[in-house]
Amino acid sequence: MAADPRPARSVVSSDQHLEETRVEGARVFDGALLDVRRDVVRLPDGATTIREYIVHPGAVLIIPVLADGRFVVERQFRYPLHRVFLEFPAGKLDAGESALVTAQRELTEETGYIAARWTRLGLIHPTVSYSTEAIEIFVAGDLTHVGRKLDDGEFLDIAEMTSDALLAALDDGELTDAKTVAALLMYLRKHQNRSAPPLGAEGRA
Amino acid sequence: MAADPRPARSVVSSDQHLEETRVEGARVFDGALLDVRRDVVRLPDGATTIREYIVHPGAVLIIPVLADGRFVVERQFRYPLHRVFLEFPAGKLDAGESALVTAQRELTEETGYIAARWTRLGLIHPTVSYSTEAIEIFVAGDLTHVGRKLDDGEFLDIAEMTSDALLAALDDGELTDAKTVAALLMYLRKHQNRSAPPLGAEGRA
Repeated sequence: MAADPRPARSVVSSDQHLEETRVEGARVFDGALLDVRRDVVRLPDGATTIREYIVHPGAVLIIPVLADGRFVVERQFRYPLHRVFLEFPAGKLDAGESALVTAQRELTEETGYIAARWTRLGLIHPTVSYSTEAIEIFVAGDLTHVGRKLDDGEFLDIAEMTSDALLAALDDGELTDAKTVAALLMYLRKHQNRSAPPLGAEGRA
Repeated sequence: MAADPRPARSVVSSDQHLEETRVEGARVFDGALLDVRRDVVRLPDGATTIREYIVHPGAVLIIPVLADGRFVVERQFRYPLHRVFLEFPAGKLDAGESALVTAQRELTEETGYIAARWTRLGLIHPTVSYSTEAIEIFVAGDLTHVGRKLDDGEFLDIAEMTSDALLAALDDGELTDAKTVAALLMYLRKHQNRSAPPLGAEGRA
């Protein structure tokens, strides 16, 4: 049987009655993008069932903040949903790459900016039921435009929007990308709704 | 080649330069849970590439609001991530089932409540890069406890939390489920930060 590809177990004792344990598992599809697993698991009541899920290398999301407070955002066609989405810049970790290095690489590739200030904002999980994906969220400040260099096969537009404009897009149903909505709330908690230090007081790259 | 399983195309003319078109596609894994596709697509520059993605039946998320304003939330072990998550109740549509009926069914199955008032809050997309999943978000009010009836193989705990407690869990890194964070912001936009009508003024089931 294949090695367990999931993150290390993290279950406090008060949650142990909810835990499922791995009996065996196998890779059932190994594609260009997706690594699909099918595990037999033992449930809390001793019965067994099947869990199928995607093994994901991890991703980053970047909130790039211009000097006037506006965010740099993207419009990108997403093939599975057959439409264009309004999103913060994001991308997957390359093998062996740290989240911060991924964020620095993706920001420049996709938006053409480099940032002198990087602050880690937190972590989200987009699809807890069928993917191991975790997204590290960073705020990028002190931006300088150096020109973008999209990957082959990557096409996207860049725009600048205020937080109020993003919130209006959420209210209108135009902004539906969950990672972007979640990151926006985390940003507003830290930089708008509380007496937290301003952007950049916490770290300089 | 298999029929196109994606949602209907929705691309405005100003975004057509970003669009990718389907050349051919096939199902590459048909599991108990996951339906995995691999399509050849034509990019905006005429080149072709591969897109792999999950075909998902759609899901719902329910924000159950008690008379004192607290939310009913869940703690559930999520196998792919090897840990327990704090989440709003959620679940997948059964074949032919409407989102509202799914929400009503899942609320009772998972939390033991029925709701006399249902309001649709909006739509989010958890994984735009590799899934067709869309999640309809509902607010459930006027709750009555009738006792839960979990699906076979489903184990989860119920708790009651204020919106401030959920926001604190987000600040602390305990709340990382993106659909729950996104739904919380949508709820706060409608019911706290703006002079919107109170919960339930919009529809009664």
